[in-house]
Amino acid sequence: MPDQPRVEFRTAPERYRHWRLAIDGPVATLTMDVDEQGGIVPGYELKLNSYDLGVDIELYDAVQRLRFEHPEVGAVVITSGKPKIFCAGANIRMLAAAPHGWKVNFCKFTNETRNGIEDATANSGQTYLAAVNGTASGGGYELALACEHIMLVDDRSSAVSLPELPLLGVLPGTGGLTRVSDKRHVRRDLADYFSTKAEGVGGKKAVQWRLVDEAVPRPRWDETVAERAAELAARSGRPQDAQGVALTELRKTRGYDAITYDHVEVRLDRDTGKVDISVKGPQGDPPASIDGGRSAEFWPLAVTRELDDLILDLRTNETELGTWVFRTQGDPAQVLAFDEVLLAGASAGDWFANEVLHYLKRTLRRLDVTSRSLIAVIEPGSCFAGSLLELALAADRSFQLAGVFEDQDPDADPATVALGEANLGPLTMSNGLTRLQTRFWGDEAGYEAAAKRKNEALEAEDAADLGLITFAPDDIDWDEEIRIATEERASFSPDALTGLEANYRFVGPETMETKIFGRLSAWQNWIFNRPNAAGPDGALRRFGTGQRAVFDRKRV
Amino acid sequence: MPDQPRVEFRTAPERYRHWRLAIDGPVATLTMDVDEQGGIVPGYELKLNSYDLGVDIELYDAVQRLRFEHPEVGAVVITSGKPKIFCAGANIRMLAAAPHGWKVNFCKFTNETRNGIEDATANSGQTYLAAVNGTASGGGYELALACEHIMLVDDRSSAVSLPELPLLGVLPGTGGLTRVSDKRHVRRDLADYFSTKAEGVGGKKAVQWRLVDEAVPRPRWDETVAERAAELAARSGRPQDAQGVALTELRKTRGYDAITYDHVEVRLDRDTGKVDISVKGPQGDPPASIDGGRSAEFWPLAVTRELDDLILDLRTNETELGTWVFRTQGDPAQVLAFDEVLLAGASAGDWFANEVLHYLKRTLRRLDVTSRSLIAVIEPGSCFAGSLLELALAADRSFQLAGVFEDQDPDADPATVALGEANLGPLTMSNGLTRLQTRFWGDEAGYEAAAKRKNEALEAEDAADLGLITFAPDDIDWDEEIRIATEERASFSPDALTGLEANYRFVGPETMETKIFGRLSAWQNWIFNRPNAAGPDGALRRFGTGQRAVFDRKRV
Repeated sequence: MPDQPRVEFRTAPERYRHWRLAIDGPVATLTMDVDEQGGIVPGYELKLNSYDLGVDIELYDAVQRLRFEHPEVGAVVITSGKPKIFCAGANIRMLAAAPHGWKVNFCKFTNETRNGIEDATANSGQTYLAAVNGTASGGGYELALACEHIMLVDDRSSAVSLPELPLLGVLPGTGGLTRVSDKRHVRRDLADYFSTKAEGVGGKKAVQWRLVDEAVPRPRWDETVAERAAELAARSGRPQDAQGVALTELRKTRGYDAITYDHVEVRLDRDTGKVDISVKGPQGDPPASIDGGRSAEFWPLAVTRELDDLILDLRTNETELGTWVFRTQGDPAQVLAFDEVLLAGASAGDWFANEVLHYLKRTLRRLDVTSRSLIAVIEPGSCFAGSLLELALAADRSFQLAGVFEDQDPDADPATVALGEANLGPLTMSNGLTRLQTRFWGDEAGYEAAAKRKNEALEAEDAADLGLITFAPDDIDWDEEIRIATEERASFSPDALTGLEANYRFVGPETMETKIFGRLSAWQNWIFNRPNAAGPDGALRRFGTGQRAVFDRKRV
Repeated sequence: MPDQPRVEFRTAPERYRHWRLAIDGPVATLTMDVDEQGGIVPGYELKLNSYDLGVDIELYDAVQRLRFEHPEVGAVVITSGKPKIFCAGANIRMLAAAPHGWKVNFCKFTNETRNGIEDATANSGQTYLAAVNGTASGGGYELALACEHIMLVDDRSSAVSLPELPLLGVLPGTGGLTRVSDKRHVRRDLADYFSTKAEGVGGKKAVQWRLVDEAVPRPRWDETVAERAAELAARSGRPQDAQGVALTELRKTRGYDAITYDHVEVRLDRDTGKVDISVKGPQGDPPASIDGGRSAEFWPLAVTRELDDLILDLRTNETELGTWVFRTQGDPAQVLAFDEVLLAGASAGDWFANEVLHYLKRTLRRLDVTSRSLIAVIEPGSCFAGSLLELALAADRSFQLAGVFEDQDPDADPATVALGEANLGPLTMSNGLTRLQTRFWGDEAGYEAAAKRKNEALEAEDAADLGLITFAPDDIDWDEEIRIATEERASFSPDALTGLEANYRFVGPETMETKIFGRLSAWQNWIFNRPNAAGPDGALRRFGTGQRAVFDRKRV
């Protein structure tokens, strides 16, 4: 697997190999029916509805399309197309053969997709129901855990289980432990027992322990699932008669050292290990209201989709490029104007504006949990305002030019940044705070002073004084400072940077999401690196060979 | 270092090699003056006031004794006895040579000691002041971060720094990142910059960035430190005229397969990888009030000290014994009676009762973060009531015998458990919740139903119905169930168990403490395991050799 081909995240229902999407009025059904021969890389068969990154890319696409293309859908049933098995979780042979980085990145993406399912339930009026019509083990049960309501067929053989620890010597990697304890409130000793019992728990006991919401005998299964889905759909506030917005294929040119979208241009600098990302602001005025923007061409949606695809592409395919440098290009006033239309639509309860806003939120969260150093470079001609300022607020460090480039364009307007309404509420991070609140955590006065300057174009010195940027070098020092910052970053241990960033980016309160990315994933990454799991005699490698794993018994 | 001698945690000021403790009325001064030749294991010199486990064992002892033996002390100054250097942090050669488990265990203990310093400040009226009279780097700065007030000498050369990332390719391992962001509220981009700048930050900029509280020129240093310490001491509510309680040397017999204290008996079962721990309840009635209990022989203090020493001994010296089985022996009513005296004293503001209670709290927290599976076995003759019931509530699983052992003692009273006031408030976990709240997190009704039964002796069936225990097997199944539970535990991957337990034990809210143990430590453990840090060409091993580390540049 070390030389895997470049992974492509763009797909569409007509190209799915593993999922079927069916819509029946307000209820959609997503049926998992994994093609055993359809692994994203060679070397394993996807038996028993087990999944790999390719299967999950389709799931992500389906969840996104349901939100944008199907305003009429208020409930989504996830079920299995295979007899007796709901889903066996992540494919073990894939995990055993995959290099460490692939495993970690795979888990991150699957986590994000499950968080997206919860986000759809919470914020889109699309409630997910897991119709567990056979055994759900490991990642299969974790998929169900991401749903609001879990139904398990009560047939004396179907069960839910987290067999990772007893069988594979690793943890459930997709939020299982956190959701069992913090979402479903399974008592900790029962949760511990459950997670060591490979065969899992079914029937009434699964209900009693809160592992599932109901156990339904097979004869009443179809009718009860339909009933429950109809009930959930009836609670939804989504419009029955609105027209969906088609997520048309992204226009993208992908080369060895450049990636180009309509609004995002990217250069891959393999010598210095850095990626230069330039985001273009809107070209032209926004529509008068969100009604004029209902299409995939609407700038906020278009640019969000491109950033989303770019983050996934770079994360997966360009692991040696450790620093991402963000620039923007355009008119800050226009960014703020588009934000205003979007926010006005969302406040007025428009379903589409709401979707775009939450999608932007999720995409920025994806950036926050990306294990790359993020640097924002703010120059004349840039448009770090409102929603695009979030890129600078998400960065580990930002540089804003004080004044102009005297040699190049002495008459240019100096670089500015501007806070807008978009920075003051809707675009929360995983910790539940905005990036501005996170930045000023514990400094209420600093927050207020900055927020008061909303919609003002702030030159470097002002922005630095207000604490909105990190450094404000002038023309003379500029190139040198940026060069040193990126070169220095490239000289550090990539692992230590990942740990540093994962800690500093999330100050203050914790949520299930931050626990999953911060605590659970960090432990899993540690375990993935230990010989007891991934070594030649470790449990992950020995699974299915008939040989028992050999463990170093020392507790660490 | 693999065959290190058994580590001994008992010490006393007259045996310190690295610290001097001086008391001047309400102000104590702890001066770090590390003996270069005094490493706890051979192979390195403790230059520049760098520390290893041995240095920290003395610090822990001093912090404890200040609380118990010096009621008159209201402020503690931590400073250095070496010129120009406050403390260089954990010794790097020690870290580079240490096996993974040693590093992790060392970091855990140093974290606990620093949390204890914060606990003394918050709950004992002993406020810690870091008088940073020279450069404080890495763990040296982290020691200062644990103090309430940080003074840095302003002399153009002294600085505070976290050089772990740039120099060693690891993270600051003792809460540094979490305290910089969540305690001192250093802005995240400045924190990021600071943590990549090996030489650190000093003077006014350190104050401006909130890294320290004040920078004081050398000519005014001594007088300002004295002034500040006097101010902090004056705020304390500790009694000036009370008699301290001497922490007399613990009576302990330590053999290859047994450890015996006055109230705790331990058998080490090396074949099955388990430790049987039996805790004896009080012998006889409690004193009428806390006044009658002011000595190290007071049962709650005595048993807490023994458990504390035992946890540290087993964690450090017995890493292959992965399961700890807790039993108790005695009269539950007497445990509740002692608890009552202790709690009444603490509520009345008695300093000693307050200390004992917080010490018990800290010791139980030490158990919570111990990477061993914890099982409580509740049999006839046991006294899992009140404070001792916390051992069962801390356990990953508990078994209570339904009825009696018919063959052995058919006339015995059946095993019971009893909640007391001690379970309902004072003994919080790191997450800020009691173990009972943690157990019923998200199940308010379950919590109320259990709490209502306070002071009632609950037999197995009742206790199981109320959710206070996990399983209630009868006489016939008992031996088999306990045997399977412990044997099965010993068959699992120790690493995966550690990860599982670290996640399930801490449900709900997060605090700096849970972040340090959960998120920060997990990332650090991962990094410690990576070739970029600990491999033969990694930064930790290459440090000081004149050769640069070789990094795998892939981001994970």
